[in-house]
Amino acid sequence: MNTNKLHKQINLIGERAQAASQIVSGLSIDERNKILLSFASEIEKNSDKIVEINVQELKEHRDDLSLPMQKRLQLSKEKISTIASSLKALVKLADPLSEGNTSWQAKAGFKVVKKTVPLGVVAMIYEARPNVTIDAAALTIKSANAVILRGGKESIKTNQVLVSILQQSLKKLGYSENIVQLIEDTSHDSVKELLHLRKFIDVLIPRGSGSFINYVVDNSTVPVIETGAGNDHIFVDKSADQEEAIKVIVNSKIQNPSVCNSAEKLLVHADIAKEFLPKLFDRLSNEGVEIRGDKEVQLIDNRVELAKDFDWDTEYNDLIIAVHLVNNLKEAIDWIGKHTTHHTEAILTNSAENASEFMQRIDAAVVTENASTRFTDGFEFGFGAEIGISTQKLHARGPMGLTALTSYKYEIFGHGEIRK
Amino acid sequence: MNTNKLHKQINLIGERAQAASQIVSGLSIDERNKILLSFASEIEKNSDKIVEINVQELKEHRDDLSLPMQKRLQLSKEKISTIASSLKALVKLADPLSEGNTSWQAKAGFKVVKKTVPLGVVAMIYEARPNVTIDAAALTIKSANAVILRGGKESIKTNQVLVSILQQSLKKLGYSENIVQLIEDTSHDSVKELLHLRKFIDVLIPRGSGSFINYVVDNSTVPVIETGAGNDHIFVDKSADQEEAIKVIVNSKIQNPSVCNSAEKLLVHADIAKEFLPKLFDRLSNEGVEIRGDKEVQLIDNRVELAKDFDWDTEYNDLIIAVHLVNNLKEAIDWIGKHTTHHTEAILTNSAENASEFMQRIDAAVVTENASTRFTDGFEFGFGAEIGISTQKLHARGPMGLTALTSYKYEIFGHGEIRK
Repeated sequence: MNTNKLHKQINLIGERAQAASQIVSGLSIDERNKILLSFASEIEKNSDKIVEINVQELKEHRDDLSLPMQKRLQLSKEKISTIASSLKALVKLADPLSEGNTSWQAKAGFKVVKKTVPLGVVAMIYEARPNVTIDAAALTIKSANAVILRGGKESIKTNQVLVSILQQSLKKLGYSENIVQLIEDTSHDSVKELLHLRKFIDVLIPRGSGSFINYVVDNSTVPVIETGAGNDHIFVDKSADQEEAIKVIVNSKIQNPSVCNSAEKLLVHADIAKEFLPKLFDRLSNEGVEIRGDKEVQLIDNRVELAKDFDWDTEYNDLIIAVHLVNNLKEAIDWIGKHTTHHTEAILTNSAENASEFMQRIDAAVVTENASTRFTDGFEFGFGAEIGISTQKLHARGPMGLTALTSYKYEIFGHGEIRK
Repeated sequence: MNTNKLHKQINLIGERAQAASQIVSGLSIDERNKILLSFASEIEKNSDKIVEINVQELKEHRDDLSLPMQKRLQLSKEKISTIASSLKALVKLADPLSEGNTSWQAKAGFKVVKKTVPLGVVAMIYEARPNVTIDAAALTIKSANAVILRGGKESIKTNQVLVSILQQSLKKLGYSENIVQLIEDTSHDSVKELLHLRKFIDVLIPRGSGSFINYVVDNSTVPVIETGAGNDHIFVDKSADQEEAIKVIVNSKIQNPSVCNSAEKLLVHADIAKEFLPKLFDRLSNEGVEIRGDKEVQLIDNRVELAKDFDWDTEYNDLIIAVHLVNNLKEAIDWIGKHTTHHTEAILTNSAENASEFMQRIDAAVVTENASTRFTDGFEFGFGAEIGISTQKLHARGPMGLTALTSYKYEIFGHGEIRK
């Protein structure tokens, strides 16, 4: 599309979203929940149509996409029914606007009310998975925000049908369909436009590869919540229960290798390496995991491929793990300090002292003692929903529940007070 | 300075700050308070030296600076003694790291602890006032952060002596002097370097003019907390108590016209304008306030200068106010929606219904009913300290107390749990 025309179009979408955010922010929790229930029933009612379009779109892109990617793009009737169930589960969660409200009397006499409010307009830029379309729309509406969606080109047709169904159900209930809008231009230019729509967008949440998120952070003037990059380490201390360690490492690596909370790196105390690693590698190899490591690790076990420098900062999102030996806790902490993405870092140990020092000194959203890294998750934490996993320190950190999509305002109730 | 050399130098400052943040984050609240008390006694002990350097620096810049600016730059013995007292008051405040901590058991068995932690490295870019140097250093240390200060060129020598005193007192107590660092290069290049030091800086807080803050927001890849721009409106509703309204408006305008919570714009219900405005203008004129307004306002009172378009979006920070008539609440809300800086917006009314609609629909950090806009202030709110007033929605909004300089991390305590 012509750049100038695209600029105008995205500006208009922003303006409409801001106006719609005023509407949705005024809806009661019952009204917002009714929208979610309507979404659930409409997408189930239209599931044949959705599947048909999705199948056709997958066919069109088949030659350009890897098998795992095709799987992620796919929207079967079963998946749609799962999505509908998760919408119904979301309805049951408490209103995030009901949390964090407080009030007090100021010395000068007036009353201050700290009131939880929606952020306003949330923009979500994500890759192919069309289920994110429904998910993002539902979470933002539950928290009384308007949303602008910018999905990937491979699933634009599926996204179009999903959003038109959502908009129809908003319309039926008598609300502005601009509460949920889709950017239909899937060129890079539309991302660029969104990154500078500070006037209308309150927060931008990118989902995708580490390099894409870095690009957004480096170029956005809209406030960003960084999510998702996870070069997660597990440090196996000398005192660790080795059987338990093997179980936890295997789970952290293979339970879902393509996600940000899977383990990517292993630091092992040199004193136990000879005894521990061959047992561990037996299990990992059985599970199809490729093992990389530095020379010392290779000398212990010849199934190990020599790691290169880039390995230590790479999030594989695949059945690969890289192993490095350390001589003590301090070396482990320093190594993690250099290579962490501040997502999840774990220690396996029986030393309370070492665990405590690790917890204190590691700068990450989640620091884990003697459990799988895969627990860094909004549902596992009991939040009932997850917007994403923030790796930054401002606003929200770690698994984000619905309250991450809220802000607050102060209301002053006076009786003519003036400042002395 | 040579750009490359400056780049290396600022990078080194960032690296040192990050290392120092690890130290200060491990200090108990007693240890942090001891640092503040040492600051207080050292700057009082050295007050003659500070005043001497400040007087000399003021002389050097006398020809380039306005009188109000000179006054802001000045650091008298009395001011130093006030600063020392405020440091002692800061010691008495609760540890911000003790707030917001919570824990629970997850379904899978492990325990989750949500723990308040410091942000890490805070960078503050500010204009001339040298008292900000002590203030910023004290607030960041109280909240267990390291700080990088970049003050204006007009007070660089005063800042240098202040920071060297702070560093000496850190050293005497056995802590790294890199907990507080000053950027000595006051060229624009040093600001640019800081804006891209994402690797080492966790948050950047600019203080200064609206255009400077916009520049920082537009160009920083480091997360920013926007503070300070306030084009604050007061809407005088038809039902307002007019005597009270005059008192509140005069206070909002003149009590300290150079700050962000002073009133800049007045919206008056057309039905009461003829009766109300001349009485108000008598009082404002007596106080030396220049009155601007649109034609309708000028027709009511010929003391009014015709406002131009730019007036409605300008923060005067001076004894000027601009007045516009509206026919109803909706017009007032819409007008504010177009011109707000999301800082403080006030309504003066006796209609509970109108007050409630105004509170709900105005999108600002603080919305005030029947009280002076000057109450948007951390001390007036009872926070005991103020980092600044945030006009953004992410992380912190409105007057920011010490907790605005904290984040949190999650700690998982497991017993070998794996994800099913």
